[in-house]
Amino acid sequence: MLSRKDCLDLDRSDPLAARRDMFDLPEGVIYLDGNSLGALPRNIGPRLQAAVAGEWGRDLIRSWNTADWINLPRRVGARIAPLIGAAADEVLAADSTSVNLFKLAAGALKLRPGRRVILSEPGNFPTDLYILQGLRDFLGEVELRVVEAARIPQALDASVALLVLTHVHYKTGAVHDMAALTARAHEVGALALWDLSHSAGALPVDLRGAGADLAVGCGYKYLNGGPGAPAFLFVSQALQAQFRTPLSGWMGHAAPFAFSDEYQPAEGILRGLCGTPSVLGLTALEAALDVFDGVDMAELRAKSMRLSDLFLDLALERCPEFGRGSPRAAAQRGSQVALTHAQGYPIMQALIERGVIGDFRAPNVLRFGFTPLYLRYIDVWDAVDRLAAVMASGEWRQARFNEVSAVT
Amino acid sequence: MLSRKDCLDLDRSDPLAARRDMFDLPEGVIYLDGNSLGALPRNIGPRLQAAVAGEWGRDLIRSWNTADWINLPRRVGARIAPLIGAAADEVLAADSTSVNLFKLAAGALKLRPGRRVILSEPGNFPTDLYILQGLRDFLGEVELRVVEAARIPQALDASVALLVLTHVHYKTGAVHDMAALTARAHEVGALALWDLSHSAGALPVDLRGAGADLAVGCGYKYLNGGPGAPAFLFVSQALQAQFRTPLSGWMGHAAPFAFSDEYQPAEGILRGLCGTPSVLGLTALEAALDVFDGVDMAELRAKSMRLSDLFLDLALERCPEFGRGSPRAAAQRGSQVALTHAQGYPIMQALIERGVIGDFRAPNVLRFGFTPLYLRYIDVWDAVDRLAAVMASGEWRQARFNEVSAVT
Repeated sequence: MLSRKDCLDLDRSDPLAARRDMFDLPEGVIYLDGNSLGALPRNIGPRLQAAVAGEWGRDLIRSWNTADWINLPRRVGARIAPLIGAAADEVLAADSTSVNLFKLAAGALKLRPGRRVILSEPGNFPTDLYILQGLRDFLGEVELRVVEAARIPQALDASVALLVLTHVHYKTGAVHDMAALTARAHEVGALALWDLSHSAGALPVDLRGAGADLAVGCGYKYLNGGPGAPAFLFVSQALQAQFRTPLSGWMGHAAPFAFSDEYQPAEGILRGLCGTPSVLGLTALEAALDVFDGVDMAELRAKSMRLSDLFLDLALERCPEFGRGSPRAAAQRGSQVALTHAQGYPIMQALIERGVIGDFRAPNVLRFGFTPLYLRYIDVWDAVDRLAAVMASGEWRQARFNEVSAVT
Repeated sequence: MLSRKDCLDLDRSDPLAARRDMFDLPEGVIYLDGNSLGALPRNIGPRLQAAVAGEWGRDLIRSWNTADWINLPRRVGARIAPLIGAAADEVLAADSTSVNLFKLAAGALKLRPGRRVILSEPGNFPTDLYILQGLRDFLGEVELRVVEAARIPQALDASVALLVLTHVHYKTGAVHDMAALTARAHEVGALALWDLSHSAGALPVDLRGAGADLAVGCGYKYLNGGPGAPAFLFVSQALQAQFRTPLSGWMGHAAPFAFSDEYQPAEGILRGLCGTPSVLGLTALEAALDVFDGVDMAELRAKSMRLSDLFLDLALERCPEFGRGSPRAAAQRGSQVALTHAQGYPIMQALIERGVIGDFRAPNVLRFGFTPLYLRYIDVWDAVDRLAAVMASGEWRQARFNEVSAVT
């Protein structure tokens, strides 16, 4: 078992240690919730201020040209692309994850006429299931087949139009084998749509290597784009020419400023756009991506695995009353770890009172995220130390109740 | 005809004159494009900075509770409600106008089973037509019937599920009679959906008085929420219990933080939400709405009509080469005026070079918006004076070409 001194030594030799200075972190807080809302990169405030005062205030409508607002969705998409193994022209930043999922799932059904099944797993991130249910109820002839992860390969048959899975599970952190499941989906003629909300920026993702067809993901978790940041979507080059979305808004038109009455989809990935882009949100997200410049994602992954292993080792050793809610092997986890306890909610509240921020997911999961760009080994050691103190003192029995413990 | 001196006198007695100080307007520019992108309210910069540094940076995930981020969509919606004649619990701020239009039009079709026609007019704002086309093509059994405005009353028959019109036309500024057309739609059992993008904040709107069923509108035009600001949607109280949207994301769930597998729509207007709200965008929009606090919308409308009448009178007198692209009677216009000219594009570019910002809409429309909260009578006089100079000098023949002249 590592000592606190060992952790300090690990921090001194950490090649990613300097990245922490790119973030504005509050004093005295150990933030283990970057999987829900990424911490604030220092450049966001000045960048947003410049966009508000200069681009909006001074240049006004002209900034669609002069500040290139019009190209923000594809420019930010191209910045996200290398983090997820995509080509620059396969990704757009726009709308929310939920809206993008609807665009892509609806579009996928039209690409597989005659097939009526969408396949997913129970306990997938709720909005994924809710959006698919909305699509099913709206179209009326769609079946949403929900089977346990282990049974997905067998459940893939010639009736399946689309497989929809979240790459890293939001609660357990378990990682799906994207390449194997995509290959299996293709064997039966189905398309594969991956939700990368808990993997983009957290571990290397290789959409092209896996042959993935479609993907969506979140801008405000490991990408640090700020609360409710625009999400992203991916449509593989191979599918772009046939892909159509029912959310055919004017920004996805071949010539938005021709103001014609008939929709004509833009070439390539741009047809995935719908309404006017959120310029302020995209500006923040674009600035946030600077923290990944020059980062070796394999190195980031190695540190992430060491951090979460350290947490699990220490927590299960010092607080044996917790169950383990994540795979034991780091390679099978994303950048997060779940502990289980019947009193998980008040325990998490008490831990937050002590300055260690994680979150709670019903019914019994305490969730901790480990973002290697701003977390140190010493933070992990101290977090477990405070968790042990919370358990030893029993102070969690007095914890307060909040309406919303955290958002995704 | 009013003189420049008359205009100065009008400004001195203008009860709305002081509102101009609430905006940060660039020196030497006369901004007649607030119908496309509203100018910057002075409080936005500080408010956003506080949200970034304090709410996001310092309080992090806790701000969903402590800064009440979770209620931003309905809080901002409730602020918009009085501007459009809605009750506080009938409006949400969320997503884009295009996405909201899809939610409501799709939901409306399900409220009128057995009817398959959506009725609209040619030349409606393009994204409205594009979204309806996307919905039609996706469902496959919907007819999009597009008839000239004058023929809408006759075209409303028992096959029509939904009438979709933009209250104030984006190009001509012509105002539809919302109450009469809604009543006519109801006579044949159809629902009425109004796009308020060019009317909210520009003139008094009375959705409840008109008996309107559904509405959407834009946050970045007369509401001054900033480029790509969140849009809004309205569902009348009478329809809320039956209304369902296919975009059934987790924020519209009855208990989003229960993380259950089955979608259950929230009570009331909240079921119109989809994904995680854009906190930064909503924060800016919320601050922007302060400029309407205490404003008498009838007074705003009176000034708006005087400003646009003054512009039309002066422009047609001094520059007889222009045609009139808007109704002559101010009561039949929104807060904008269109002039027509075969060389409209280079003329507008030359006018912008002289510091008067309007925009161009193909094929021949020069569009000018008059926002009474930050425009003076003297601005209108000077704008026409510069337009006359552009025409007299012929300088527009050397105007430069920009890819995007302006966005909606």
